[in-house]
Amino acid sequence: MSDYKLEVQSLFRKYNIQIIKNFENYLINYNLEKTIFIIDSKVDELYKNKIDLSLISTRILKIDASEDAKSMKNSIFFIDKLIDLNVKRNDTIVAIGGGVVQDIAAFIASILFRGINWHFYPTTLLAQADSCIGSKSSINFRKYKNLIGTFCPPSKIFTDLQFLNTLTKQEIKSGIGEILHYYFTDGIDLAKQLSNDYELLLKNTSKLTFYIFKSLEIKKKIIELDEFDTKIRHIFNYGHTFGHAIESITNYKIPHGQAITIGMDLANFISLKLGMLEQDLFSEMHTILEKNMPVFIFDENNIGDYLLALAKDKKNIGNQLGCILTRGPGKMEKKFINIDEELKILILTYSDIYLK
Amino acid sequence: MSDYKLEVQSLFRKYNIQIIKNFENYLINYNLEKTIFIIDSKVDELYKNKIDLSLISTRILKIDASEDAKSMKNSIFFIDKLIDLNVKRNDTIVAIGGGVVQDIAAFIASILFRGINWHFYPTTLLAQADSCIGSKSSINFRKYKNLIGTFCPPSKIFTDLQFLNTLTKQEIKSGIGEILHYYFTDGIDLAKQLSNDYELLLKNTSKLTFYIFKSLEIKKKIIELDEFDTKIRHIFNYGHTFGHAIESITNYKIPHGQAITIGMDLANFISLKLGMLEQDLFSEMHTILEKNMPVFIFDENNIGDYLLALAKDKKNIGNQLGCILTRGPGKMEKKFINIDEELKILILTYSDIYLK
Repeated sequence: MSDYKLEVQSLFRKYNIQIIKNFENYLINYNLEKTIFIIDSKVDELYKNKIDLSLISTRILKIDASEDAKSMKNSIFFIDKLIDLNVKRNDTIVAIGGGVVQDIAAFIASILFRGINWHFYPTTLLAQADSCIGSKSSINFRKYKNLIGTFCPPSKIFTDLQFLNTLTKQEIKSGIGEILHYYFTDGIDLAKQLSNDYELLLKNTSKLTFYIFKSLEIKKKIIELDEFDTKIRHIFNYGHTFGHAIESITNYKIPHGQAITIGMDLANFISLKLGMLEQDLFSEMHTILEKNMPVFIFDENNIGDYLLALAKDKKNIGNQLGCILTRGPGKMEKKFINIDEELKILILTYSDIYLK
Repeated sequence: MSDYKLEVQSLFRKYNIQIIKNFENYLINYNLEKTIFIIDSKVDELYKNKIDLSLISTRILKIDASEDAKSMKNSIFFIDKLIDLNVKRNDTIVAIGGGVVQDIAAFIASILFRGINWHFYPTTLLAQADSCIGSKSSINFRKYKNLIGTFCPPSKIFTDLQFLNTLTKQEIKSGIGEILHYYFTDGIDLAKQLSNDYELLLKNTSKLTFYIFKSLEIKKKIIELDEFDTKIRHIFNYGHTFGHAIESITNYKIPHGQAITIGMDLANFISLKLGMLEQDLFSEMHTILEKNMPVFIFDENNIGDYLLALAKDKKNIGNQLGCILTRGPGKMEKKFINIDEELKILILTYSDIYLK
């Protein structure tokens, strides 16, 4: 397993990711006097037979990791809990969970004592293959999603694929969507390889190690160039602008990574129709993406809401949708397109041909 | 005035300080559609004849800049106000005020949209000569002072000395204490020069330009090496450990920069008694510092509280006080000393000889 180590050069500090086995052996090795655990309650329950944290430490903050949990109000509540647990500036926060636990731990770690050391054990495929690196935290404020946030990478990331065993198929597919998105920003070979292994990976998640690692390698290259997401990191919005709007109009019933699978395909279709992308490249990418798509169609019932959701995207300028289109794998381009009748027809046409 | 420009290389970005005249001419030149002003209510009142912000913009947040204002609870209240003012990620926050306004603006700017651009017009001598650079923000959380904070430098700092005209003598002396502290970490010549001009500077604050600039130059060199305050920036705790404890036991009635004036002299006295500092150097520094000292003595009534306050310092390890001592100007050293009967007698002896 020692081949799977990656070091990321952040503007704050270097940090590294190791793919490990038996995370429980790592947890018992912390200096417990200087460690506070933040853990997803569900993960804590599911893995109690491996390690019962409450038997080794009294400094544990359990979080019911719903989207509602990552609010400003709750962050303050959690800081209060950490104070009750006698948090000190030289402590290390050890966070175990998915994206929500990561957001909360990162945000608190960035503002407590002007920055406190933290480690992360990602437990979802999305967190393992994507969010664990890149430094971002996102916190909801009142009704505003992700209005608040900071950049605060953990100092160490320990990735154990045994956590994937307790995920649903949908959660795995969601992670695969995000992985494919990184692959396509870089080229097509990895996406093809994953596509060939697709059914195998759904059955046997332990085979995902290589694919997770490659996803992180691609992300690493870009975030090292543009950690604060002001320039080239924008290419990672590929599929996301169109995917977020699907999540939004379906009240997040479609998992993130599956929504962006359609998002990528739609971005490709628009690129095709704008003459940026060749038909054969579109088809090649579509064949890969369609395996990972959820059941969803655009029709007269939802297209109005969808265009409205697109119009609210933060990257827009005026009435123009700021999005990433493509000239092919590894060739992403930022474009601004009109949100108009033409776009509406184009999306409905796409849906009629390619969605089910 | 164009000689007085300084550029600081932060890990986040480069930013610069200009010493300007007529700040009002700068304020009217902002693109008002993309600007939100945060201003100390008192400054707003005092300078209404120069510029009435309410006549040029509707996007103004006025802050009663007491120590209580910089709490987590208020920060959230202020974010709500900014949302009411339709804050957007491409806006610039223009903050006008002293340290409290800076803390609030910097903290909000660092967590809103994962970082929003901000400019700073420091209006106190402390803010102009010290806190405006260095990136730190500090926010109180419940009863805990400065528990929360971030690193978030403004992108531009505009320093207008006309603001000093409306400060009290005590506030000027407080700023001078902080300036002397920077000088002594570097050498003795500037401190001597300031001491010779001391009475003149109190009368005519416009003569402070050179001294403010030199203070920032010294700070710049160190924060560029250690922005996150993990190593060499610690030398700036010189005088502060002993000064903070004076502020604490007097309920902040003694202004910060005057408390650290005594703090430096006491650190020097301890250094002398530990054999680190020569008597003639101690005396030379004392002659400079005593001009700027407030009326204060240590005696049997307050020494117990003072030692307790020292014992609570966050930089302590166990019962040892973490503090900066000195072998002379420009030769600061981090030391750990016992908080015991010997220290108590030493402080009382110091007070008997040197304080009044």
